[in-house]
Amino acid sequence: MSSKRKLPERILMGPGPSGVHPRVLQAMAMPLTGHLDPVFLEIMDEVKGLLQMVFGTENELTAPMSGTGSAGMETVFVNLVEPGDKVIVCVKGLFGQRMVDMGRRCGAEVVQVDGAWGDVIYPEQVEAALRQHPDAKLVSIVQAETSTGVLQPLGEISGLVHDAGALLVVDAVTSLGGTHVDVDKNGIDACFSGTQKCLSVPPGLAPVTMNSRAEEVLLNRKSPVQSWYLDLSMIRNYWGQERFYHHTAPISMIFALREALEMLAEEGLENAIKRHQELGAVLQAGLEEMGLELVVAPQHRLPQLTVVRIPEGVSDAQVRGRLLNEYGIEIGGGLGEFKGKVWRIGLMGSSCKLRNVTLVLSALREILDSI
Amino acid sequence: MSSKRKLPERILMGPGPSGVHPRVLQAMAMPLTGHLDPVFLEIMDEVKGLLQMVFGTENELTAPMSGTGSAGMETVFVNLVEPGDKVIVCVKGLFGQRMVDMGRRCGAEVVQVDGAWGDVIYPEQVEAALRQHPDAKLVSIVQAETSTGVLQPLGEISGLVHDAGALLVVDAVTSLGGTHVDVDKNGIDACFSGTQKCLSVPPGLAPVTMNSRAEEVLLNRKSPVQSWYLDLSMIRNYWGQERFYHHTAPISMIFALREALEMLAEEGLENAIKRHQELGAVLQAGLEEMGLELVVAPQHRLPQLTVVRIPEGVSDAQVRGRLLNEYGIEIGGGLGEFKGKVWRIGLMGSSCKLRNVTLVLSALREILDSI
Repeated sequence: MSSKRKLPERILMGPGPSGVHPRVLQAMAMPLTGHLDPVFLEIMDEVKGLLQMVFGTENELTAPMSGTGSAGMETVFVNLVEPGDKVIVCVKGLFGQRMVDMGRRCGAEVVQVDGAWGDVIYPEQVEAALRQHPDAKLVSIVQAETSTGVLQPLGEISGLVHDAGALLVVDAVTSLGGTHVDVDKNGIDACFSGTQKCLSVPPGLAPVTMNSRAEEVLLNRKSPVQSWYLDLSMIRNYWGQERFYHHTAPISMIFALREALEMLAEEGLENAIKRHQELGAVLQAGLEEMGLELVVAPQHRLPQLTVVRIPEGVSDAQVRGRLLNEYGIEIGGGLGEFKGKVWRIGLMGSSCKLRNVTLVLSALREILDSI
Repeated sequence: MSSKRKLPERILMGPGPSGVHPRVLQAMAMPLTGHLDPVFLEIMDEVKGLLQMVFGTENELTAPMSGTGSAGMETVFVNLVEPGDKVIVCVKGLFGQRMVDMGRRCGAEVVQVDGAWGDVIYPEQVEAALRQHPDAKLVSIVQAETSTGVLQPLGEISGLVHDAGALLVVDAVTSLGGTHVDVDKNGIDACFSGTQKCLSVPPGLAPVTMNSRAEEVLLNRKSPVQSWYLDLSMIRNYWGQERFYHHTAPISMIFALREALEMLAEEGLENAIKRHQELGAVLQAGLEEMGLELVVAPQHRLPQLTVVRIPEGVSDAQVRGRLLNEYGIEIGGGLGEFKGKVWRIGLMGSSCKLRNVTLVLSALREILDSI
């Protein structure tokens, strides 16, 4: 970085991006190879294998899209949805709403299943929607809702969706690497994520996976995919054995993703998930001990993202500002319905360590005690 | 990078990515800030100002899209084109064809103006198309056609397009930073580029700019932009004063873009363009001295990308393979009509230096002499 400005040293404990490990930052700084270089093609294969591991899938079509998490969401929608299709979208936060928006932009008739912000979607709701709309092509749901901190159980819903002959689409942006996604075991037909949450890679890639059922839907479309850039019917030929040039892959980002996934493999996915669970519980207990109220019921809390109600009379901007300016800690504010009402504290990937839990609890206590 | 594999040291002289300067690689490795951090918002403003400089524009709507160059192309098409619109696309190579594809996916009626691969589009051709289709909403053309090495003059065509009341859309992926794009002076209404060519930033961002005429078309659309991810009517509120969260910006890539643009400002845009012109001429003279035939007529040659006909009886794969494996030099092969028939030698951004010209000429001579 030029001398013009010294960047402040941040501890990233918001809803993403999370902190990036020095090994991954070093991978970002590796001199480039070309995107068709034989060595780069080998790295692509390694990334694919490692993504299959973390997704818990054997899906052949598993690759990082060249955009951020929202590009992953858009990838799944533009590839699976055609104008006139009926899709059921479960909405219990901002990212569910975003899927409604994307579905409509694909020309779909969107049936919305609404849950309260801070709660899960219940299987009976999905069952009722499927009974009323037996022609629905897919049901989409967010596993880890970044706007509310809710962990959505998938097992029962997956069975209902498949009994109805529909595809199950899951948003795993905030869950991947910190929670079991288990694509194959959970019967998820299409799944997308982002790199800047529990994978602790800078934002810029969106891992996506689709099983053969979803791929068949893609390959039997009547109309072309409305996005050229995200058209998996072409991208699969670059990530597959054909290596057919589509667009120039974000090479450095892929170096970084490989490094982070290798670190995850070294730690072991199970150990990483356990680390998130344990430290998330420590943070949540500490916050409640301070008398703060958590928005989500204990059984539905995400370990990697905790949503705290801002105490009455306390200024959102003041507290977050002091955390940032005095302690160098970033936590997130609320979005949508929760704007100004909650804080979102992330413990994702590299940021998920005991000293960060201790620090954020102590810093928050000091600030709250002083006002 | 982990010890698992040592990456080979490449000299990137293909059609992009180009070599990335160590200062820019270091910027990629800077620890992250959040995407809404006040410091990051200042960096966004700096990037915007520097992009305005290199585009030669005062357009308020100037920002890097979170994808590679093709995402920039798609951004312009999805934002300006609505179903049923008529658009004129000039095609004289692969990237013109790609715009036809994107226009159709937006539901446009695409009128194609065809030129020979290796030649420019002539103003008379555009004039005739506009006369036949006075209701065309826009005319799009590639300034630096990466598949053929042709530099397209824009001045006369720009006048014709505006006389007809249409918008001029220009692909500046390979030109920006190496050739005068001069958005305002050339009357370009919407322009897109990529970072991995003459800006010498890793692939992953697509600078885009639109003037107020184009912005008005965007804001008066009848239908929503079909892409949520690339919807400029929302993204302008994140890059504008509102700072409204849209998606998580690729933070490290933006650090790198800022660093590369600062280096360009230090050198001076005029000096950088002159460097490309002078060294491109040295390379082209050297290739012709070796008896190799250049595809493009002298007056239409791009300095930053030279397209050479492969001599009869010489194996494309063998020569490129030896350059890569014995000398560590990457040059590009042909695409589309030119597949197997040409080599594409890039001198872009950081890769554009005298020692690379000397090296690639000598290496190519040694290989050709030995077969």
